[in-house]
Amino acid sequence: MDLWANLDELRRRRSEKWRRYPSDVLPLFVAEMDSTLAEPIRTALTTALDNSDTGYAQPDVLPEAYAGFAGRRWGWHPDPGSMTLMPDVARAARTAIELSSEPGDAVVINPPVYPPFYEWLEMTGRRLVPSPLRSGPDGWRLDLDDLEATFADGARVYLLCNPQNPTGTVHTRAELDAVAQLAEQYGVCVVSDEIHAPLTLGDARFTPFLSLDRPAAHHGFAAVSTSKAWNLAGLKTALLLGGDEVVGKFERIPDDVWSSTGNLGVIASVAALEECEAWLDELRAALEVNRRWLAEALAPLGVGYRPPDATYLAWLDFRDVGLGDEPASVLLERGRVALYRGLDFGPEGAGFARLNLATSPEILAEGVARITAAL
Amino acid sequence: MDLWANLDELRRRRSEKWRRYPSDVLPLFVAEMDSTLAEPIRTALTTALDNSDTGYAQPDVLPEAYAGFAGRRWGWHPDPGSMTLMPDVARAARTAIELSSEPGDAVVINPPVYPPFYEWLEMTGRRLVPSPLRSGPDGWRLDLDDLEATFADGARVYLLCNPQNPTGTVHTRAELDAVAQLAEQYGVCVVSDEIHAPLTLGDARFTPFLSLDRPAAHHGFAAVSTSKAWNLAGLKTALLLGGDEVVGKFERIPDDVWSSTGNLGVIASVAALEECEAWLDELRAALEVNRRWLAEALAPLGVGYRPPDATYLAWLDFRDVGLGDEPASVLLERGRVALYRGLDFGPEGAGFARLNLATSPEILAEGVARITAAL
Ligand SMILES: Cc1ncc(COP(=O)(O)O)c(C=O)c1O
Ligand SMILES: Cc1ncc(COP(=O)(O)O)c(C=O)c1O
Repeated sequence: MDLWANLDELRRRRSEKWRRYPSDVLPLFVAEMDSTLAEPIRTALTTALDNSDTGYAQPDVLPEAYAGFAGRRWGWHPDPGSMTLMPDVARAARTAIELSSEPGDAVVINPPVYPPFYEWLEMTGRRLVPSPLRSGPDGWRLDLDDLEATFADGARVYLLCNPQNPTGTVHTRAELDAVAQLAEQYGVCVVSDEIHAPLTLGDARFTPFLSLDRPAAHHGFAAVSTSKAWNLAGLKTALLLGGDEVVGKFERIPDDVWSSTGNLGVIASVAALEECEAWLDELRAALEVNRRWLAEALAPLGVGYRPPDATYLAWLDFRDVGLGDEPASVLLERGRVALYRGLDFGPEGAGFARLNLATSPEILAEGVARITAAL
Repeated sequence: MDLWANLDELRRRRSEKWRRYPSDVLPLFVAEMDSTLAEPIRTALTTALDNSDTGYAQPDVLPEAYAGFAGRRWGWHPDPGSMTLMPDVARAARTAIELSSEPGDAVVINPPVYPPFYEWLEMTGRRLVPSPLRSGPDGWRLDLDDLEATFADGARVYLLCNPQNPTGTVHTRAELDAVAQLAEQYGVCVVSDEIHAPLTLGDARFTPFLSLDRPAAHHGFAAVSTSKAWNLAGLKTALLLGGDEVVGKFERIPDDVWSSTGNLGVIASVAALEECEAWLDELRAALEVNRRWLAEALAPLGVGYRPPDATYLAWLDFRDVGLGDEPASVLLERGRVALYRGLDFGPEGAGFARLNLATSPEILAEGVARITAAL
């Protein structure tokens, strides 16, 4: 089966990406891919249907599969006993925040950042402290001085996004080491959202925060899942990992969490992690093609773009082409192409929009044609 | 395909029911059925896999399907605009409690009752006020005088379970009318968990709380899903319904709720509600056979049992056979049969255990043989 589905196939989907907008709109907004299912995942799910295996998820099978994947991929061997099943990364991250702080406590995030981060802090009653990424010649990077200032000011938790959404930044080992050192110095708990970790591109090397040989890693959490790299977000399965100093807190997690997890998601995730690395590499190669092509296509338009080091997201800078603070609105109206609204990622997103490039080169080209038409 | 899967097929499942215990234990505990998938559901899910339709759920398709089902089944026509997508009934019920009360407020429940009710109140920081069911010649019924006393004492919410888990009681229209009247008198919001509603047996008639022609219905909520009647709990989809006086509060629900919902669950639920009524009636007939047979089988053992009027759950009274306060522990140890622990349903569950009779007559007979052996 081809890696990318064609438009006819995509229009048959009933997911958010393909149903939110009327059919004259080309959707390049939400983080779903236009890929077809990897064969081992399809087989595992077909078997599950054959077995009418649609009851509650069983909590005990996924951690082992993730540990194996992390070992092969990053030379890191987390203890399956340090992981607990979650319905999604959203719930995993919120749970980690709740286990490491109290309502009213300050939590640092790095805008522009995945919009639900704001919602998670609101839902848990935590106080948002922004420490914006700094844009420079090597892309959007952590501003370690500013981060230190927020830590010194009493932050309890740092909700890190690595790789970063929407910028595609992969934080380096040196940066993460510096983060760990600051976290230790100021007693901050690091919660690392690593949902995009398998999706590194080109030479970028992902470093799992909990793999650092530092006390902050023993006190930190990571939220991971197969939902982005294998496009399984609608199956509702993720994992929360805890450092050995905090894993004991997992006992406080209500049973509701595992019963909220999707059984087909667990089954698909195990197949993804154990049998779909070749597929992942094929996908990464295809994303590589798209991220390069996009640079060529956007350059003449005056739209700013730095190819992401990971993720299939492109953080586009429309500030020089006069589409105002929320270019996504103009692009939707004039170009009938749906990007994710920049301001949803924080005030730093004014003049930006996020484009999802996990689609066929044809559809991506059509997306750029629509952007061009709108300009 | 046969309605009930056989033991070989069941042992291939990876769900909680079939993986929690070692394989020498016969599992009759958690509320999953041993049924095979209804054909239209299987077809819908197979099509979804063909389309690689594993992205985020789309919020807008299920309400219409539920409204149609409610109309055909109960002559009730709720407005699809009064419904909102939820990942499960747990989240739906907690959301309704949060929309209608504040932390610290008193919420009334009727023990013995589905154990997570206790957890939901803890998770939302509400104060539990028990108003136990009264056991009499017509089964476990609401104690309206006691309920009134709890309402008079300042309860803000009444979390009703209809049909009731674990007793299988279907509250009558007259009882629900009386509840509505009390709720109006004391300003209590009724949150009705109607997950088992499609599973009425024999002559029992289910009355949706929100269908009552009373102010309390306009101020109440109902949580519903296809997860019990069509065995789709692992696919993570449900609906929250609100009366017209409270539906405006849905705006306060965070987006996280729809992104926590399973896309395959939505697809399967639409198929269930629109195309699987004949299958449901076939299932109900098979449950009818089982609930009657169980009466004959248990009578000689001295185990108390009143066939449920709805649900596939049997609330077994072991108080006369000397298995102590937690018969499920003894049955598991001596009989290698897993029932749900009675005390988890509240102190009123001492000496009781809950058996799941949604299985083939052969497996049910084996379950009873193991109970007999343990006695
Ligand atoms: C950084 C990040 N975290 C979390 C999520 C959401 O993951 P889930 O659907 O597992 O909650 C996304 C989805 O795009 C994401 O980009
Ligand atoms: C009365 C009742 N409510 C809620 C649930 C859980 O439903 P869900 O899995 O949709 O949260 C159950 C499951 O058995 C139940 O019996």
